[in-house]
Amino acid sequence: MLDNTNKPAFAKRTERMKASEIRELLKLTQNPEVISFAGGLPNPASFPVEIINKISSDVLTTIGETALQYGTTEGVIELRETLNTYMKKNGIITDVENILITTGSQQGLDLVGKVLVDPDDVVIASAPSYLGALSVFKSYGADIIQIPMKEDGIDLDIMDHTIKKIKNEGKFIKLIYTNPTYHNPTGVSMNTENRKKMYDIARDHGIFILEDDPYRELSYFKESELSVKSFDKTEHVIYMSTFSKILSPGFRLGWITGMSEVIRKIAIAKQAIDLCSNTLTQYIAYYYISKGYAEKHIPKIRTMYKEKLEIIINALNKFMPDYVSWTNPKGGMFIWLTLPNNINVNDMFPYAISNNIAYVTGTAFYIDGKSGMHSMRLNFTYPSNNKIVEGIENLSKVIKKWNSKTYVESNNTLDSKERGKELGLILK
Amino acid sequence: MLDNTNKPAFAKRTERMKASEIRELLKLTQNPEVISFAGGLPNPASFPVEIINKISSDVLTTIGETALQYGTTEGVIELRETLNTYMKKNGIITDVENILITTGSQQGLDLVGKVLVDPDDVVIASAPSYLGALSVFKSYGADIIQIPMKEDGIDLDIMDHTIKKIKNEGKFIKLIYTNPTYHNPTGVSMNTENRKKMYDIARDHGIFILEDDPYRELSYFKESELSVKSFDKTEHVIYMSTFSKILSPGFRLGWITGMSEVIRKIAIAKQAIDLCSNTLTQYIAYYYISKGYAEKHIPKIRTMYKEKLEIIINALNKFMPDYVSWTNPKGGMFIWLTLPNNINVNDMFPYAISNNIAYVTGTAFYIDGKSGMHSMRLNFTYPSNNKIVEGIENLSKVIKKWNSKTYVESNNTLDSKERGKELGLILK
Repeated sequence: MLDNTNKPAFAKRTERMKASEIRELLKLTQNPEVISFAGGLPNPASFPVEIINKISSDVLTTIGETALQYGTTEGVIELRETLNTYMKKNGIITDVENILITTGSQQGLDLVGKVLVDPDDVVIASAPSYLGALSVFKSYGADIIQIPMKEDGIDLDIMDHTIKKIKNEGKFIKLIYTNPTYHNPTGVSMNTENRKKMYDIARDHGIFILEDDPYRELSYFKESELSVKSFDKTEHVIYMSTFSKILSPGFRLGWITGMSEVIRKIAIAKQAIDLCSNTLTQYIAYYYISKGYAEKHIPKIRTMYKEKLEIIINALNKFMPDYVSWTNPKGGMFIWLTLPNNINVNDMFPYAISNNIAYVTGTAFYIDGKSGMHSMRLNFTYPSNNKIVEGIENLSKVIKKWNSKTYVESNNTLDSKERGKELGLILK
Repeated sequence: MLDNTNKPAFAKRTERMKASEIRELLKLTQNPEVISFAGGLPNPASFPVEIINKISSDVLTTIGETALQYGTTEGVIELRETLNTYMKKNGIITDVENILITTGSQQGLDLVGKVLVDPDDVVIASAPSYLGALSVFKSYGADIIQIPMKEDGIDLDIMDHTIKKIKNEGKFIKLIYTNPTYHNPTGVSMNTENRKKMYDIARDHGIFILEDDPYRELSYFKESELSVKSFDKTEHVIYMSTFSKILSPGFRLGWITGMSEVIRKIAIAKQAIDLCSNTLTQYIAYYYISKGYAEKHIPKIRTMYKEKLEIIINALNKFMPDYVSWTNPKGGMFIWLTLPNNINVNDMFPYAISNNIAYVTGTAFYIDGKSGMHSMRLNFTYPSNNKIVEGIENLSKVIKKWNSKTYVESNNTLDSKERGKELGLILK
C-alpha cells in the first residue's frame, strides 16, 4: 500500500536496514585513478579462470541437464559429501545431512539470523566485527554487544564477564559471532588455546557460537589454527565457510554445518528465500575440490597474497609516521591501522579520496557508529604490487598532512601505541 | 542460546515457516517407477546445454576475471540493460536503474515481503495461488486473503469488494499478489480487459500489485496478453520474472522492476541477504538474450511443451471419467483438475503413490489448509510424452477406483461441473 502522497509504506523492519558504508564508499572509488584499499575483493588474477573453463565444459558435457535443473534446497549431494571430507582435514566431524550449501556465506549469516534471532535478543561480537554480519543481526532486531579485542581476538575474560552480566539482567543471548581466523577487519588470528577457551565459555553458558571462517585457506606462513568447531563435542558451534576466496566470489557459494535441528530449520527458511543455490556452479565447485584442482591452485593464491602482505608491511614500515600503528596479520585479506586520536578517519576520507586513496573507515565495523573513528581497514589482496607501494606512500602523506592540520587545530598529539592498546589490538 | 535440554531456542518467526508440501511430497516420488505430475520442473531436454557450454566458454575466455568477481547488488549492468530492452517488447517501460537481478524469482518474492510486509498486514492473492509466494508472505506474518477465481483469474468484483471491506475494518493492505499469465497452479491466463481493470482497482485503492510473470514465454497458441505492468502509469505495479523457464532454473536468476524507492530498498535488503547474484551465470544470461540465442531457442521449448499440453489434454479426454473436469491452459506448465466433492485428494494420495502416480494436492495452494481438497495440480512439462499418456490412464483408474469406494461409503455423488464453478474455474 502507498500512503496519501503515493509513497510506499515500507515494513517496519526496513528501518533497521541501512546501506553498507563500504558500498557507499566504493561508489567514490570507481575513478580508475583511485588506489583502493577499501574493497574486500580477492585479486581477479587469483581466479582459476582456465580451470573453471575446463571444469564448466566437463560438467555441461557429462551432466549438463542435471547441472542446469533445480537442485535440492540443501545443495548438490556430491558437493556436500566432498565438503564433509574436506572439513575433516580441519578436525570438523559432521555429517553430510548436516551440511547445507548457501548462496555465499552472506546467506549463511542471514539464515542463522532468520532462524535464531528475535528482536532484542543479544548477539555478541568482537569490536570491531565484519560489517556484513553486523547488518544481518541488526536487520533481525538483535541487540549487538561488541566486546573489545586483545591481540589475537575477542577478549575472552571480558566476554565471559559480559555474558554473566547480560544473563543476570534477564536478557537472552542467542549467539556469539566470531571470525577467529584472519579476522575481518583486523587480520589477527586467535591462538588455539583461546579457541578452546571460547568454546568452553559458550558451552558452559549454553550459547551458540557462529564461527565464520572464510579466510582459513589464506594462510601465508603456517597452517591455520584448528577451527573452534573442531573442539565442539556438544553441537554448540555453527560453522560456515565459502568458496569466495579459493575459487570465485561470483559463484555465491558457501556452506554451513551445525546441530541437525538448526540445519533443518535453515533448510525450511532457505526454501522460501531462493529454493536452492546455483546448481551449475555447485557442480563446478564439486569438481574443483574432488578432482584435485583446488589442492594445486590454492597454494598459488597463497603465494600471490603472501607477497602482497609482505609488500604492504614493508611499505607501511618505510612510509608511515611513528604515530601510526598496525596489526600483524599472518593470512587473510586485511590489515588494520590505528591512527592518533586527533585524526578522525571519517573526516579525513574526502581528503584521501581527493589524493586518490581509498580505505574503509573503522566506524563501519562498530554498531555504535562512533568507535573506530581513528582506525581504518586496508585490503592488500586487490591492488597490484606497485599500487600497494604507491598507495601506502600516498596514504602516509595524506595522514601526515592531516595530522599536521589537526595538530595545529587541537595542539595535542597522543601516543598511538597507547591508543592501539586501548582498542585492544596488537601493534607492530 | 540453547534451552535447558540443549535444544535451540529458535526465533519466533520460525513458527510461521513450514516445509513446502510439494517438497515433502516429492520425497515420496523419487522412486523411478512413479510417474510424477507433481514437480514444477521444466523438462531438462528444454535446456540449451550446448548453447550454454559455448556461451560459458566465450564469457570465461573474454571476460573471465570480471565474470568470477563479486558484482554489484543490483546485478550486472549489461544484463539489466538487455532486460530493459527485452521488457519493452512487452510494453513495460522502466529504467535500467529500476531493474534489479534476483537470485531466482523466489528471492524476488522474499525481498518484496521483507521490505513491504509487516506482521498482520493484508496480502491479497487468488484462491488458489503459487504456494512459494504464500509461504513467503506467511513467513513475514501477513494476513493472506485469498479471493476466488473466475474463468481467467482472480474475481475482480469480489477483489474490489473485499478491499473496501478490509479498508473499512482499518486493516492495512500491502499487496495484491498476482500471476496472471498461465497461472500456477491452474494454468489460466487473464484477459487484457481484466488486466487493465485489475490495475485500475489497485491504483484507485493505492495498493501495490506484485505481478509474478515466470511463464510469459511459454505461450503455445498465440502471444501472451500484455502484462499488468504495461498498463501501469503510476508505479503501482512491481513486476518480476525469471530465466528459470527459458534458460536454466539451476542458474537461480530472476529480475524485478518497479517504483524506484522500492527497488532501492530491495537493493539494501539484498545486500545483507546475499551481496549479489551469481555473476558468471548473469553474464551467460546476458549473452543468451543479447546475442540472439534466446530468440532461436525459446520457440523450441514452446514446440516441445505445446505437444505435451496437447497430449495431456487428449489423454484426459480419453481416460478421465465424466465427473472429473480441468482447466484449459494455453501456455505455462500446469493444468488443474477438479474432482467430485466425495474425493479428498489428500486421502487418495497414498493410494495414487502406491499406483505409481504423483500429483500435488490442491490444498497446497490455499492458506487455510482445507480448500482445494477436491483439486489437484498436474505438471505436464516434465514427464516424457509416453509417460504422460500412461500416467493419465493410471490416474484415471486410481480416481475411478477411489470414487467407487467413496461412493459406496458416502452414497452421494455430485456434479463436477457445478463443483468446478464453485471453485471459480473454467471447465472443459
